[in-house]
Amino acid sequence: MMNGVNEPLTRQEFVAQAAAGEVVVEVAGCGVCHTDLGFYYDGVRTNSELPLALGHEISGRVVATGDGAGDWLNKAVLIPAVIPCGECDLCRRGKGTICRSQKMLGNDIQGGFASHVVIPIQGLCPVDEKRLAAAGLELADISVVADAVTTPYQAVYQAGVTEGSLAIVVGVGGVGGYCVQMAKAFGATVVAIDIDQGKLDTIAEHGAAITFNAREISGRDLKKAISAFAQENGLPSTEWFIFECSGSKPGQESAYSLIVHGATLSVVGFTMDKVEIRLSNLMAFHARVLGNWGCLTEHYPGTLDLVLDGKIELKAFIEQKPLSEISSVFDAVHQQKMQRRAILVPDA
Amino acid sequence: MMNGVNEPLTRQEFVAQAAAGEVVVEVAGCGVCHTDLGFYYDGVRTNSELPLALGHEISGRVVATGDGAGDWLNKAVLIPAVIPCGECDLCRRGKGTICRSQKMLGNDIQGGFASHVVIPIQGLCPVDEKRLAAAGLELADISVVADAVTTPYQAVYQAGVTEGSLAIVVGVGGVGGYCVQMAKAFGATVVAIDIDQGKLDTIAEHGAAITFNAREISGRDLKKAISAFAQENGLPSTEWFIFECSGSKPGQESAYSLIVHGATLSVVGFTMDKVEIRLSNLMAFHARVLGNWGCLTEHYPGTLDLVLDGKIELKAFIEQKPLSEISSVFDAVHQQKMQRRAILVPDA
Repeated sequence: MMNGVNEPLTRQEFVAQAAAGEVVVEVAGCGVCHTDLGFYYDGVRTNSELPLALGHEISGRVVATGDGAGDWLNKAVLIPAVIPCGECDLCRRGKGTICRSQKMLGNDIQGGFASHVVIPIQGLCPVDEKRLAAAGLELADISVVADAVTTPYQAVYQAGVTEGSLAIVVGVGGVGGYCVQMAKAFGATVVAIDIDQGKLDTIAEHGAAITFNAREISGRDLKKAISAFAQENGLPSTEWFIFECSGSKPGQESAYSLIVHGATLSVVGFTMDKVEIRLSNLMAFHARVLGNWGCLTEHYPGTLDLVLDGKIELKAFIEQKPLSEISSVFDAVHQQKMQRRAILVPDA
Repeated sequence: MMNGVNEPLTRQEFVAQAAAGEVVVEVAGCGVCHTDLGFYYDGVRTNSELPLALGHEISGRVVATGDGAGDWLNKAVLIPAVIPCGECDLCRRGKGTICRSQKMLGNDIQGGFASHVVIPIQGLCPVDEKRLAAAGLELADISVVADAVTTPYQAVYQAGVTEGSLAIVVGVGGVGGYCVQMAKAFGATVVAIDIDQGKLDTIAEHGAAITFNAREISGRDLKKAISAFAQENGLPSTEWFIFECSGSKPGQESAYSLIVHGATLSVVGFTMDKVEIRLSNLMAFHARVLGNWGCLTEHYPGTLDLVLDGKIELKAFIEQKPLSEISSVFDAVHQQKMQRRAILVPDA
């Protein structure tokens, strides 16, 4: 339980009970996301009052069901990080990401750094356990699909990446690494940019066609280098798809500086920091910036398919840790000491 | 002819000759745009070397034709401000606004502050002179349709404004005034924002449902006031369509601050100034920013129809001036002493 910014996380007993249309899920694993750290270290406000269990990347098994949810009993599930109400005008028009009654786990309602979570069933994504085993994955492993993999899915889908596109991913950590793989799965040739050479080396083996260390090359030189790469490989010199996944001011500035004619810059990462940019460049380049909030629940099964089909590699990017070690894991992630995304698994 | 930034404009004789696929147009009128002033006073670089005749909002009559352009002889025409090549891959995919071979009048090629212009025929928009007369308009009057009216057309079309939308236009001068009318023509209820009470009073009579003077109300109060207006009138509280037409830093900052969930901010005006903004708001609000460069030539006939049908009022917003007075007119526009858009008409 988070009690306050930078205050010690505490353990709290609770009784999980499912109301009508809800289920209780025994958590198999819950991924640690940049967003959790934002709440805990940077004072980004949670929508629900504290104390609150953080965590929104959850897989698990349904162990109790409320009225009308009986079919889900004992099923393995992936829980959407953000659950739209499914009933309002926006949801009916397929705009669930801006549903004003949406519930984000570990923000609006109790999250997954816990033994159990209680959630509404709309949008719940079933997991085929045979395919899971065939893919060499455990149920806890796919927790990160909710958010870390689905968010890039929606961003890449929304941007319109297609066969032959040139995609650029800035920040290839947790979400960005999957964004590289996702853009490639959609047919793009992918340029990866980061300041962490280790992450660049890893992503070069998992989808990136070329990598650039932003500590060594930046600004106009970086844009020139990517243009040269595009030209050498018969890729477009316009309409680049840029994905800002670092959630940092330098990353956003770098991503913005790469805008070419007809470019699409997707803002996937989050930071409270402001950036100083020439907004009019969007006019001069007829370019666009698309914010991306989470992922519609309808895209979850398709995203999971890509993972189970081996088009998105998880294993090289995740690491299971006991939930009891949450404080030291948060600390390690905060200090950027972990190369892989931590998945907290409730202690037996 | 512009010879240099802030250097006196000069008169220069030339022989207008049409090559194959080109026509010579006798200029009826050419509108004075913010962009021209940017070149002349602010040192925004023209793509063509100086000396150059500025001016890209041109109507006139074809008086000579090159090979393959004979059908245009004697026709009244509206000339697209930006003429895509029509042949490249981008043009063929309907992306003419980012065509790398596009020619902008008074920027890439000689413009309309002249007696004649020579232009390629692709995209040339014929004018029905009977309907023009029936609408009580002269050929010179509709020069401003190229750019000042077509640009808002494309911005409103691209943003997806529809019946029942809430649109907000920041800066209701030259382009912005038409943007208010255009958004209304597409079915929106329109909020107009400016710092010039005179312009607000005018636009209140031509399409704006409510106006706000940004000198009196801004920031959060402005957003609250628009929200209250939306609620009172049964308009959406999400998915606002914001059009930044002031081409100024305060205008852009104001427009950005009005972003709500699912909002679309269209950048229509241009300024060299940078703005300091929290780009991540686009992620948190699942909002987007769309740059808009000019207007595809294929939208010109539809835009002209709206004018000739009386859905877009021109007369209240324009004022003809002799071309020989260009220097004093530039000065007056630069000092914001003109309430209406100036159209320069070649002296008889």
